[in-house]
Amino acid sequence: MKIAIDIMGTDYGPKELVLGAVNAVKEFGCEVVLVGDEAVAKEWLSKYKADQNPKIKIKHASEVITMDEHPAIAVKSKKDASIVVASKLLRGGECDALVSAGSTGAASVAAVLCVGRIKGVERPAIATCIPSLTGTTVVLDSGSIVDAKPMNLVQSAVMGSVYAEKLLNIKSPKVGLLSVGEEETKGNEQTLATYPLLKKVKQINFMGNVEGRDITNGACDVVVCDGFVGNVVLKFGEGLAKAILTLIKEAILSGGILAKIGGALIKPAMAKLKKRLDPAEYGGALLLGVKAPFIICHGSSKAKAITNAIGVAVKFAENNVVSAITEKIAESQKRNEETDK
Amino acid sequence: MKIAIDIMGTDYGPKELVLGAVNAVKEFGCEVVLVGDEAVAKEWLSKYKADQNPKIKIKHASEVITMDEHPAIAVKSKKDASIVVASKLLRGGECDALVSAGSTGAASVAAVLCVGRIKGVERPAIATCIPSLTGTTVVLDSGSIVDAKPMNLVQSAVMGSVYAEKLLNIKSPKVGLLSVGEEETKGNEQTLATYPLLKKVKQINFMGNVEGRDITNGACDVVVCDGFVGNVVLKFGEGLAKAILTLIKEAILSGGILAKIGGALIKPAMAKLKKRLDPAEYGGALLLGVKAPFIICHGSSKAKAITNAIGVAVKFAENNVVSAITEKIAESQKRNEETDK
Repeated sequence: MKIAIDIMGTDYGPKELVLGAVNAVKEFGCEVVLVGDEAVAKEWLSKYKADQNPKIKIKHASEVITMDEHPAIAVKSKKDASIVVASKLLRGGECDALVSAGSTGAASVAAVLCVGRIKGVERPAIATCIPSLTGTTVVLDSGSIVDAKPMNLVQSAVMGSVYAEKLLNIKSPKVGLLSVGEEETKGNEQTLATYPLLKKVKQINFMGNVEGRDITNGACDVVVCDGFVGNVVLKFGEGLAKAILTLIKEAILSGGILAKIGGALIKPAMAKLKKRLDPAEYGGALLLGVKAPFIICHGSSKAKAITNAIGVAVKFAENNVVSAITEKIAESQKRNEETDK
Repeated sequence: MKIAIDIMGTDYGPKELVLGAVNAVKEFGCEVVLVGDEAVAKEWLSKYKADQNPKIKIKHASEVITMDEHPAIAVKSKKDASIVVASKLLRGGECDALVSAGSTGAASVAAVLCVGRIKGVERPAIATCIPSLTGTTVVLDSGSIVDAKPMNLVQSAVMGSVYAEKLLNIKSPKVGLLSVGEEETKGNEQTLATYPLLKKVKQINFMGNVEGRDITNGACDVVVCDGFVGNVVLKFGEGLAKAILTLIKEAILSGGILAKIGGALIKPAMAKLKKRLDPAEYGGALLLGVKAPFIICHGSSKAKAITNAIGVAVKFAENNVVSAITEKIAESQKRNEETDK
């Protein structure tokens, strides 16, 4: 198992990505290819005393795509950008999966242009895990497909269902369409048009509309939504979780001596909970619908998040999620064509 | 100050609404008119020993609109429904504000049909307060204007700004457009079309796009969004806050004896925080854009939430928010017409 890591695109620089990769090699026994500036990669590898590790290779790339560049223009013009070179390694079969913490837009474009879409998938979707009361909920799309067409949401539903089954080991995962009410008649133009299509898809266990609160109450395993809505929800959730934990700290610190002692005593329990809520623990989001495993991390990822993302990449590749998606998408479209006849 | 209360539409029945009203009269010194089944109202008033209170009147209404009825059809056909009768009291000037915990759809329709829209407002918006790290953020629309046109979002921005200024005492409130990135070029078709319009509105302090996390981090005072997005965000936030508090409890209870002692010691601090996060404390959402103060509460509101909502209704009426909105909307549209010439 060999994972390509674009080491150039993160808020904290190659330092965290290289360390994350070094730790992943130890933890998962996989091989990695660090894609980016060779001199920089070597420098950090030697600092981490990993420059002699035979499981770690470097592939030089002379260019970088930054967060503020136009994704499509940058990917097309910078042929030697780290994300482009890494994507080509993936397409050529030299690597089994790819991890990036650079511009999400550039990564998505590189995935489509250099790796290619699965047959029948019009637009790849970003699937993110959100902790719920009973485990984990997969939310997709969380930022790639803005102004989605109903067919995009249907494809997301099929792909998200495969993800939950293959990677979270949920049998016949419950799929919900995110809306403003449970009834089929509640929603916006987009969800109203999508609901009847989802009802017809035999490849998923469609449970109907779900509401915002169902994302965390364990009512369903996969929540399908437009990329605009998913992105807002995801960022709002991160902000709210952080705000609540901060407010708890403030409440305890301003609550007198007993509260302070109490706060000290619950520290280990709170640390465990913080870990459960920490996006870094979930190891990045999966770009579903491309021909090979593609993982997109937060720009603010540190080494731990990168290591976890590489772990997810290994699982993603080992479990043949891509072939399962290819199969299910083909099946679902065949059924649709038959029904249409 | 006289507030009309539709006592028929809540998950818990008139019991909670009547108690909430009785307590509000004590707390705020206002008068109330209980609108609904007279016998039921009398029964509860006598149980609460408030049947002789001269500040509490009853207005009989023989019909009720339930949650599962089609709002527009129900409002038009049930002339003697409690929400319709209450709305007419408001229009006729017999009451200064209205509080409802029934079907949001029916309340919105009754507001438009029986009370009327402010001149220039195409669709009224529901404004909700969300606690943030630095205070409170007003989010609108939170469920009324699904598939909003850019002009609806512009009007929401003006109305939300007046709300923050008049009721939350924020001078020149910062207004953000909810999107998937801060740059003007990031967003969906709706927000991309709205951004340039908002830049031109002199009546608001427009700070550009904001992201999901900005709702709780205190970056802005008013967040403008489509009703679908706002509704999903609001319900997701309630679910997530509840989930986090539950997970904290579980973590503490499963954390051994020291954690349990710690949990007991921080109870008062946590109770304070829970109160701050409790939607019931915020006293319902404001329907902005109708000709008189109109408050919509959660269907699951209990007495405390109703009392708080009546408090907000009193403030809403006392501060002449409706005339301020009428003025600002007229001003903003005059400017637009001038620019267009």
